[in-house]
Amino acid sequence: MAIDKLHEAIINLSEDRVESNVRLGPEHHGSSDAGEIFLMERIALEDEGVKAEIAKLQLPPGTTVIGDPWIYGSDGLDDERRQYQCFLYVRYSTEADSNYYAFPIAISPVIDVQTEKVTRIDILPTSTNAKVGETQPYLVRPANDYIPEAQKLRIDLKALNVVQPEGASFRISQGGQVVDWQKWRFRIGFNQREGMVLYDVNLPEHYLFYRLSLSEISIPYADPRHPFHKKAAFDLGDCGAGVMANNLKLGCDCLGSIYYLSGVLSNNKGEAVPAENVVCIHEQDAGIGWKHTNYRTNRAVVVRSRELVLQSIITVANYEYILAFVFNQAGEVSYEVRATGILSTQPIDDGTKVPWGTVVHPGVLAAHHQHIFSLRVDPALDGHDNRLVYEEAHAMPRDVALNPHGIGYVVKETVVEESGGFDLDHNRNRTFKIQNAAVRNPVNGMPVAYKIQAPPFQKILADKDSFHCRRIEFADHSIYVTKYKEDEHFAAGKYTNQSRGGNGLRGWVGRKDNVKDTDIVVWVQFGINHIPRIEDFPVMPCEITKVTLKPVNFFDKNPALDVPPSEQALNRSTLISEASHQPTTETRVSRRGGGALCSSKL
Amino acid sequence: MAIDKLHEAIINLSEDRVESNVRLGPEHHGSSDAGEIFLMERIALEDEGVKAEIAKLQLPPGTTVIGDPWIYGSDGLDDERRQYQCFLYVRYSTEADSNYYAFPIAISPVIDVQTEKVTRIDILPTSTNAKVGETQPYLVRPANDYIPEAQKLRIDLKALNVVQPEGASFRISQGGQVVDWQKWRFRIGFNQREGMVLYDVNLPEHYLFYRLSLSEISIPYADPRHPFHKKAAFDLGDCGAGVMANNLKLGCDCLGSIYYLSGVLSNNKGEAVPAENVVCIHEQDAGIGWKHTNYRTNRAVVVRSRELVLQSIITVANYEYILAFVFNQAGEVSYEVRATGILSTQPIDDGTKVPWGTVVHPGVLAAHHQHIFSLRVDPALDGHDNRLVYEEAHAMPRDVALNPHGIGYVVKETVVEESGGFDLDHNRNRTFKIQNAAVRNPVNGMPVAYKIQAPPFQKILADKDSFHCRRIEFADHSIYVTKYKEDEHFAAGKYTNQSRGGNGLRGWVGRKDNVKDTDIVVWVQFGINHIPRIEDFPVMPCEITKVTLKPVNFFDKNPALDVPPSEQALNRSTLISEASHQPTTETRVSRRGGGALCSSKL
Repeated sequence: MAIDKLHEAIINLSEDRVESNVRLGPEHHGSSDAGEIFLMERIALEDEGVKAEIAKLQLPPGTTVIGDPWIYGSDGLDDERRQYQCFLYVRYSTEADSNYYAFPIAISPVIDVQTEKVTRIDILPTSTNAKVGETQPYLVRPANDYIPEAQKLRIDLKALNVVQPEGASFRISQGGQVVDWQKWRFRIGFNQREGMVLYDVNLPEHYLFYRLSLSEISIPYADPRHPFHKKAAFDLGDCGAGVMANNLKLGCDCLGSIYYLSGVLSNNKGEAVPAENVVCIHEQDAGIGWKHTNYRTNRAVVVRSRELVLQSIITVANYEYILAFVFNQAGEVSYEVRATGILSTQPIDDGTKVPWGTVVHPGVLAAHHQHIFSLRVDPALDGHDNRLVYEEAHAMPRDVALNPHGIGYVVKETVVEESGGFDLDHNRNRTFKIQNAAVRNPVNGMPVAYKIQAPPFQKILADKDSFHCRRIEFADHSIYVTKYKEDEHFAAGKYTNQSRGGNGLRGWVGRKDNVKDTDIVVWVQFGINHIPRIEDFPVMPCEITKVTLKPVNFFDKNPALDVPPSEQALNRSTLISEASHQPTTETRVSRRGGGALCSSKL
Repeated sequence: MAIDKLHEAIINLSEDRVESNVRLGPEHHGSSDAGEIFLMERIALEDEGVKAEIAKLQLPPGTTVIGDPWIYGSDGLDDERRQYQCFLYVRYSTEADSNYYAFPIAISPVIDVQTEKVTRIDILPTSTNAKVGETQPYLVRPANDYIPEAQKLRIDLKALNVVQPEGASFRISQGGQVVDWQKWRFRIGFNQREGMVLYDVNLPEHYLFYRLSLSEISIPYADPRHPFHKKAAFDLGDCGAGVMANNLKLGCDCLGSIYYLSGVLSNNKGEAVPAENVVCIHEQDAGIGWKHTNYRTNRAVVVRSRELVLQSIITVANYEYILAFVFNQAGEVSYEVRATGILSTQPIDDGTKVPWGTVVHPGVLAAHHQHIFSLRVDPALDGHDNRLVYEEAHAMPRDVALNPHGIGYVVKETVVEESGGFDLDHNRNRTFKIQNAAVRNPVNGMPVAYKIQAPPFQKILADKDSFHCRRIEFADHSIYVTKYKEDEHFAAGKYTNQSRGGNGLRGWVGRKDNVKDTDIVVWVQFGINHIPRIEDFPVMPCEITKVTLKPVNFFDKNPALDVPPSEQALNRSTLISEASHQPTTETRVSRRGGGALCSSKL
């Protein structure tokens, strides 16, 4: 079942024939899949050598051993053999959902996929250095579970329901492929690698984006020691946001009036497999959209901001990502990522601290790691010939005639001529914009544009010569621009599993193509340097990051000007009076100033 | 009524006596108030010279002239006289809420508050330089209104209601002063200058913050030309977030189950004036709080994130700010600012472009401007003796034994010893934390801390010698820390109106006090460099920015672990089937690739 021969075949479904079938070189490996993952775990746990090593732990009777097979991240050696590194955990409880990531053990078998044999058993370092010793009897630890049965749940959270008595404002057509909402129209696709993809994103009289997709997620870890130095996952290329997509459940993953999209994928035998409820579509209220009160008449006009959310949730072993495209009524589209799930853990000796990780539970280390995302934006603002520019704000020099008081500042725009990588610079308020220089705003004559609001992130910390850096080809700039080329969708290359780099964005950028007023692709990098907190365990509160595409002189006024005002007749809010609340008896007051009344303090 | 004598008196209300009454020097001016603002406008419009100048415009019959009095921002000259600069607009329509900011005129009277006379009539520059000419007949322009009557409102937005059948989860007691919600407890105050203020913010067994307040908002403008060079408002010091707070209306400003707080302020005669519904309190759903799916059992556990929002909205002539404290169940508290309302506009000649502003309507220029906010955080993490530290992530040097593959990285912490100003550095993942070094986390022994997640912003662009820079004493660093001192609440000083600087944060920091393990105050600066887009007119979609305080090794696990799971029984979501939607007939397809089906594309 597990093979290390990789073929790339193109099958013409309509004509029912194979157009091409090429066997790729041994340096290329396909992504993993569920079948292979479960097989690797079984091979690891049934291996006599592994069993012998586990026996040394003298685990209590009834303890279950669990193995998470990890992609065998390249370090330049032995990459042509398809392999997995299995990290082991134990579970004392008979509860299958008890959190075994709270009980990592120091035994780590390596499996050869072709021979289906354990080729090596690594013992993990658990001190402050890389040294490893003999496997010692395992110290039983307290549990640290996330399942509700294990908690004393809070009882004072009242229900909050979102109700749309007239139904939702969006329309779904063509078998769920076309979505119409608040003037927006776009198509949705779903595939094994990228999961949810948007096409033909447009507004009345304006074509905006040809294709919007997550290109890659890479997670290089900070622990320098063997075998942790190989931990650098490519969650899309090594696994796939489609195959890992959760089957979303009503009332759990979304709130309100929900439409679910399903897809079709294939398993490792090439059979079609339905992927049910992998995308949920719903509206949400996003607070006030705009407001003005005329202080002369005291008339306030306020509209609320309604958003359309297309959400997909993926599980990558211990981790979860909640991935969403969010549209609003002001012509903006955002891509939001919420990182949650469970930290990847490893054993650490009691009383030991290391600078590359945080102890999150007795005997448990969560190593620092970077989540680096690449969002692929294939723009077509009023046509495919677009350009990338960046705008900066600069102080004006003092000038007796024009700037005598030294307070003036101006905006300067720079056009990007050649494909390349670029950085944010908040000290200059640097703002990247995708522009169509051939189309001018009818009112102010400025070229129509969309700006990219991307959060800053720390570039990859692995050094330039490291395989992490060579492989994560998008990790060193916030913005990349390339000339559109067929088959260039994945920033780290098409085949990332055990890759050595050299097949991705860096190479495409290196062509130095002209990117001015032509068919361009913009790659937006963002991320989180996750320095684990103990609050991130046993499951982490969502860490949220977001990229927004915003019109700049694209329309002729506020696109949300025609949103109906927010009125009680529509919103049906409820007034709460203090009487309906019982004051608590408990009192906790300040250590300075004591219990003084608020309004008398300043 | 209008005076330029400023007294600072302390009145003991309980003992009914004046404790002190000091007349301050002529360089100090009190904030403006509504009465004075309306008086200044009347004086400007009734002035014969102004009338004569307006006559030259040859305005159509029935045209109304309107004046916005502006604080007379200091340029180092003539600051001891209390003055206002009035910017004029016209309105053709008889509709009092027609948007006069779409019709700025080039006549700008200056009024002396003491004499109640117009002392000067400035003619505004409308070309690319500072030259001004004779007032010419005014060119009638098309209207650009934001009121719904002037729009063709969209009709396809369906109602979205938030319902809490069991009521809200928060409790209000002590006359609205104490709020209990999801383990949080704090007090709310409301005053003329800061508006909403929080005190004694705590959680069970943990005291967190003594006082949380917005300290100042300053908005320096980019147009270097007289008299625009004086445009640098201090919205709290010159006006006041309390006196400008909107009276919030059910169904307009919040959604769901709403509790309103009212305050009491005083008018310019010293009379008590009720400030009704100035703060709204409600809960909102913030999407998924955390989730994990065990891929072996396929059991998903998911909780939603519930937030408590305390919102206040202020109107500063043309502009609006929506100010909110937001609490969640994971121990986080955020301060969110939404900038909306109408741009401050000025006339510009047709066909003219200037680098310090954007043409947003024919003949209308909106100058660039910076919104710089200072949030005052008076911490008391498990006691008042706290410290400020910053943490950075650094690559490890290559090392054969410890870092042979060059992928390792570590976190380094630096303790701030002396009061000072500090900057973010995303290239180092620099993270500021407020710590109590004397209290250690029971599990991992780390000092308990809260980190400050602040967005980067461009520091003030006005040069070091400018009065904008001297006056906006907080505009040059993201983080300031001072030793707590009575009466130091306002980053730009207590009296900002026509101030020349020198009474605020820079001076306090200059004391070089020890700030290690003592009673400290942390000032968090953030902001927006607003380069106007035409989409920001006639009213701008909210620009949102946010500061979050997040626990780091403060608790012993995820504080939201005990939130009840998200279940349909509680959330009552609705399933939408495609059948219920009518596909649209309109088709808009791509210019590349055409109307190909999504799922077949990659």
